Amino acid sequence: MRNVAPSAPDNGESLSINFHASSALDKYPAKQHALRVVEQLDVKQGLIYLPGAVTALLEDSDMPVPFRQRRYFFYLSGVNEADCHLTYDIQHDELILWLPPINPVRVGWVGRGSTVEEARDKYDIDASQYSPRLSKFIEEWMHSNPGKVYLLHASQPARPSNAHLSDKKRVDFEKLQRAMDYCRARKDPHEVGLIRKACNVSSAAHTAVLRNLLSYTNEAQVEACFLEYCVAEDAKNQAYEIIAGSGSNGAILHYVKNDEDFGDSQIMVLDAGCEWDCYASDITRTIPLSGRWPSEEAKQIYDLVQTMQSSCITALRPGRRFLDLYFVAHSIAIRGLLKLGILHNGTFAEIWKAGTSRAFFPHGLGHHMGLEVHDVSERPITAARQGVEKTVPRPRSSGSKLERISTTSDADLGVIDMDDLTEIEQFDLTPELCLAPCDSESNVLEEGMVVTVEPGIYFNRFALEQLYLSNPTHSK
Amino acid sequence: MRNVAPSAPDNGESLSINFHASSALDKYPAKQHALRVVEQLDVKQGLIYLPGAVTALLEDSDMPVPFRQRRYFFYLSGVNEADCHLTYDIQHDELILWLPPINPVRVGWVGRGSTVEEARDKYDIDASQYSPRLSKFIEEWMHSNPGKVYLLHASQPARPSNAHLSDKKRVDFEKLQRAMDYCRARKDPHEVGLIRKACNVSSAAHTAVLRNLLSYTNEAQVEACFLEYCVAEDAKNQAYEIIAGSGSNGAILHYVKNDEDFGDSQIMVLDAGCEWDCYASDITRTIPLSGRWPSEEAKQIYDLVQTMQSSCITALRPGRRFLDLYFVAHSIAIRGLLKLGILHNGTFAEIWKAGTSRAFFPHGLGHHMGLEVHDVSERPITAARQGVEKTVPRPRSSGSKLERISTTSDADLGVIDMDDLTEIEQFDLTPELCLAPCDSESNVLEEGMVVTVEPGIYFNRFALEQLYLSNPTHSK
Repeated sequence: MRNVAPSAPDNGESLSINFHASSALDKYPAKQHALRVVEQLDVKQGLIYLPGAVTALLEDSDMPVPFRQRRYFFYLSGVNEADCHLTYDIQHDELILWLPPINPVRVGWVGRGSTVEEARDKYDIDASQYSPRLSKFIEEWMHSNPGKVYLLHASQPARPSNAHLSDKKRVDFEKLQRAMDYCRARKDPHEVGLIRKACNVSSAAHTAVLRNLLSYTNEAQVEACFLEYCVAEDAKNQAYEIIAGSGSNGAILHYVKNDEDFGDSQIMVLDAGCEWDCYASDITRTIPLSGRWPSEEAKQIYDLVQTMQSSCITALRPGRRFLDLYFVAHSIAIRGLLKLGILHNGTFAEIWKAGTSRAFFPHGLGHHMGLEVHDVSERPITAARQGVEKTVPRPRSSGSKLERISTTSDADLGVIDMDDLTEIEQFDLTPELCLAPCDSESNVLEEGMVVTVEPGIYFNRFALEQLYLSNPTHSK
Repeated sequence: MRNVAPSAPDNGESLSINFHASSALDKYPAKQHALRVVEQLDVKQGLIYLPGAVTALLEDSDMPVPFRQRRYFFYLSGVNEADCHLTYDIQHDELILWLPPINPVRVGWVGRGSTVEEARDKYDIDASQYSPRLSKFIEEWMHSNPGKVYLLHASQPARPSNAHLSDKKRVDFEKLQRAMDYCRARKDPHEVGLIRKACNVSSAAHTAVLRNLLSYTNEAQVEACFLEYCVAEDAKNQAYEIIAGSGSNGAILHYVKNDEDFGDSQIMVLDAGCEWDCYASDITRTIPLSGRWPSEEAKQIYDLVQTMQSSCITALRPGRRFLDLYFVAHSIAIRGLLKLGILHNGTFAEIWKAGTSRAFFPHGLGHHMGLEVHDVSERPITAARQGVEKTVPRPRSSGSKLERISTTSDADLGVIDMDDLTEIEQFDLTPELCLAPCDSESNVLEEGMVVTVEPGIYFNRFALEQLYLSNPTHSK
């Protein structure tokens, strides 16, 4: 969620690859999603069962847990109401939404959910019923059909928790999530439209902050302004907690306290994006608080990050490995930091090998974005993402994917001299910090994928001192 | 959370009884709270153990569950940081805060919590340690001390979940919560100061809405404005979901969609209050959207509710039964609705007996307010609260507490002619709807209690038609 730019954001950060032009935000294509998932499941019969999020109370409280629809349930239903269930009969191609019965006493308190008639009208489903009949339905289905019941995973409570769902021979916990992750990673035009809408609201909210920034004196006002804009536009939920860090707080990646006065701080990082119909946006900007960069050095760092970002965005396309763009960003960062004298006493190759640039750019280049801000996929787009995922060393002698980039003649990569990068095949692999290509299984970008491109350069005193300056390999 | 007034709110709704004047928001008096709880526990030795709220991820997501500190933990610590624990050794009068160890890798991501040194400075505790030592500490404590370990309840995970905490003879799940509920219901000046601060911010946020209302066209803008004001003042959390219902939405008690255009609606209900340092506020106002009441009838209903509220607020004092004020409010409502012709074909006594006024005033008069917006207490202040709690019939011939009110000469009750109320002793008890005094155990108000007084009159078509007009007793 990181990036630097002093001007109004332009949504360039959230890109859809070859997205199909469609701004029609009509009925959510639940049925199409079900058909795509079944294609991945590769079975002819069976029943997919997904429970939606339930209303629940906070521990030791009579206040409700903030409602957040289960994303897998939403993907196959488009329904953002509480206490629903979903079944999809694969053989008979029947998608049924199971709604909570309407309780007249509760209606005066919280209003009511959809009736079965309203649901059939609103959602892309074949039928709707009230949920008390669900248990009987599943029992009968299992009795009269030969296939399996597909559940997301063993830890997701299967409700109704009937005896017939405990027959392990009839229930599959393995296949559904992987099939859905595959589909969710490849967005259709309707989904791209929702993401684009979320991005547009967030972009305008960032602009609202910029418009008012000179009148603010603390981080809380920035958070409040962003929130106010989104909520007034009916984007009630943020895709992640707003990060509004001034001064050194801007270098804490997920800083969310947002309660300090600007004081003498000259720069702030605003990393914030709302949801639209459960779909995320994610925009980060670094902003000079006075309206102009406080020093030539700050401007140079900004320019460096902008080069990292624009080079990577330009290079995005189906068939390209996202992990390689991460290496491109790091190579630009190392060169830039060497030129600025912030990294010194080492060659490009030495610094690359040691992974020292991760002291300044400690997270991945980006991530899938969709129903989650860090959306699911059947494989990670970069094994180096977030710096805490396990990295799997690959044989040193195998053909490096990086080499594929380094030998490309693609003009979009013109700013990058990749010659030195071929060296990395020889590097030792230090899983915590190395920049070598650790995971040959990293996903290649495909049509329909929506990813963020968000390099950054941070100066976090604590992280630098504790993790890097204390280590002689990096500290020199 | 209900009340009617067209003018700027004055916080009159949230009252502390005989609160000690003190606006000092200095160190939260955790140690005093521990001593008060032990007084209620009435034991000379033992160890209180409370885990705080933990950081956790949302299901099937890498996003965190919104952090909300456990209220019982906060009451004995004043600590709003994640992943802490608390122990209080009763005999040795030692309150220890157990902090999560500081992980350098995480610091760059989320910043860090307090160090043990910072914690000793910030919080009213005797000592602080990092939590990896906690397990050993409890083990040694149990080995060398004779008392019990007091836990809140069996369902709260006791972490560290060590074998020594599974010795049922050494662990008590019964006493602690009741003792803490008793103490939490009686606020000290520091707590009243925090509640007052929350009320002041909420009050100003309501005023901000009123200032901007004529420029708004939908409910979302109202919600956004309220939120913006609170967050900018560093009140990041709402005590409950904001309810901004225009037109008929205003009659859905916990309407939170807040997404409709005003259209032809003439009135809106705004029920919203922020938290301050985990303490709640709760302010509701009904507002004419054009700036003036749309009809004489609307004004008359407003005046009626205001009479209900002011009569009850005036009558609040230690020694008085809150439930009786609920009856006072209903008696004023019945008289008023009869006078306006909205209730007809029945005498006061018939309507009282049938409970028909609950069609219009379907919730309790108010509730304790503190670390929860509906705060805990060792006994409910009114058995009729929220209309769903169990009511316990009392013997008809016992001295009615209501009579005590009806014969009082207190001038504050002057507006209410209580003569008819003595009749209610003779009424049948219908637990769902009756207005008779059902629970002789209802709490008497005491010094330090903070309660809301929030009568209302609602016209909810669905509730009226389904619950009342379909029943011949009410429909006539």
